[in-house]
Amino acid sequence: MPKIVDPAQRREEITFALWLVIYERGIAGVSLHAVADAAGISVGRIQHYFDSKRELVLDGARRIAAMSEETWVAGDHDGSAEQLTALVRQPIPRTEAFRIGTAVWYAYLATAMADPELGEIVRGAERNGLDTATHLVADLLGLGASGGTQARETAVRLVALSNGLGQAVLAGVIDVDEAMNVLDREIGALTGMIPAQ
Amino acid sequence: MPKIVDPAQRREEITFALWLVIYERGIAGVSLHAVADAAGISVGRIQHYFDSKRELVLDGARRIAAMSEETWVAGDHDGSAEQLTALVRQPIPRTEAFRIGTAVWYAYLATAMADPELGEIVRGAERNGLDTATHLVADLLGLGASGGTQARETAVRLVALSNGLGQAVLAGVIDVDEAMNVLDREIGALTGMIPAQ
Repeated sequence: MPKIVDPAQRREEITFALWLVIYERGIAGVSLHAVADAAGISVGRIQHYFDSKRELVLDGARRIAAMSEETWVAGDHDGSAEQLTALVRQPIPRTEAFRIGTAVWYAYLATAMADPELGEIVRGAERNGLDTATHLVADLLGLGASGGTQARETAVRLVALSNGLGQAVLAGVIDVDEAMNVLDREIGALTGMIPAQ
Repeated sequence: MPKIVDPAQRREEITFALWLVIYERGIAGVSLHAVADAAGISVGRIQHYFDSKRELVLDGARRIAAMSEETWVAGDHDGSAEQLTALVRQPIPRTEAFRIGTAVWYAYLATAMADPELGEIVRGAERNGLDTATHLVADLLGLGASGGTQARETAVRLVALSNGLGQAVLAGVIDVDEAMNVLDREIGALTGMIPAQ
């Protein structure tokens, strides 16, 4: 009897292999052959799921964005403060797998300017995080649905801080605990600003 | 009479060409042929200045680090506040050339984990910025030479914020003015903390 393979799972395995190749060789170093080797499957098998190397690379960017978003979707958290905490902690690479994912995201970011189609995926993901943070800050501070300038400015600062801390951890100049402490103090200062109910 | 070429200038031209190639194709896409094409010179001419593609790629990382540092060296600024302002503004890509430089730095950062020699250059540059920021904050707040935990924490936060804002500008989710405004407010809040003399 032939082995039954879940197509979604197979696509995911191919994407993980793609990320490893990007991590080791960069996006320009991606070939179907290298990804097939990393996944332990044939090039033909990859082509069964992805029309081209290009489609695979684009899909890899979309999946990182989707996986980031999953860490801070509303349903998994008790309230705005907890959700905002999950959102700003997300860019801090806490495990080896996470460090690889962060490095791959930087590889996508580095090519996004010269590659408009990739740029759109990267921009959409970063904008989505910022918009969500803005709504959560507005909610936390009781500023109404959009939150106006104050919520936007606070969200820009928080999200930038969190990405910059992730960059410092990735570069190896601060450790995960130091990054988390800075974020916790920022969130603490923000929730301290909540007007008494 | 043969054209007289300043070797330092020629090395610089080759480095600029390298960055363009990295910008368009990534580090894995670098070849001596591609860099020669971008510089409008022969491969042999590049080999006169750089022993190998590898040496050229490493030199390109060291030069970005050195150029960043030049923007905030002490001699060009009137005091700690001005120097700190220059340091935290440095990662915000204000011109097209600067955007390319920032994207190339992300390409180096993305490969730094999988490539220890590149990682050491990236880490050294990021650590240098953080150490300088720590000293400047200590000086600004009158905390003595090392500044202790408070100076370090403030510097970590400022430098991370500035890198994260640079990332947001590069991704196209905020503009340069918005990034500068956030930084100016942070520096303003910090200098407002200076004890009266």
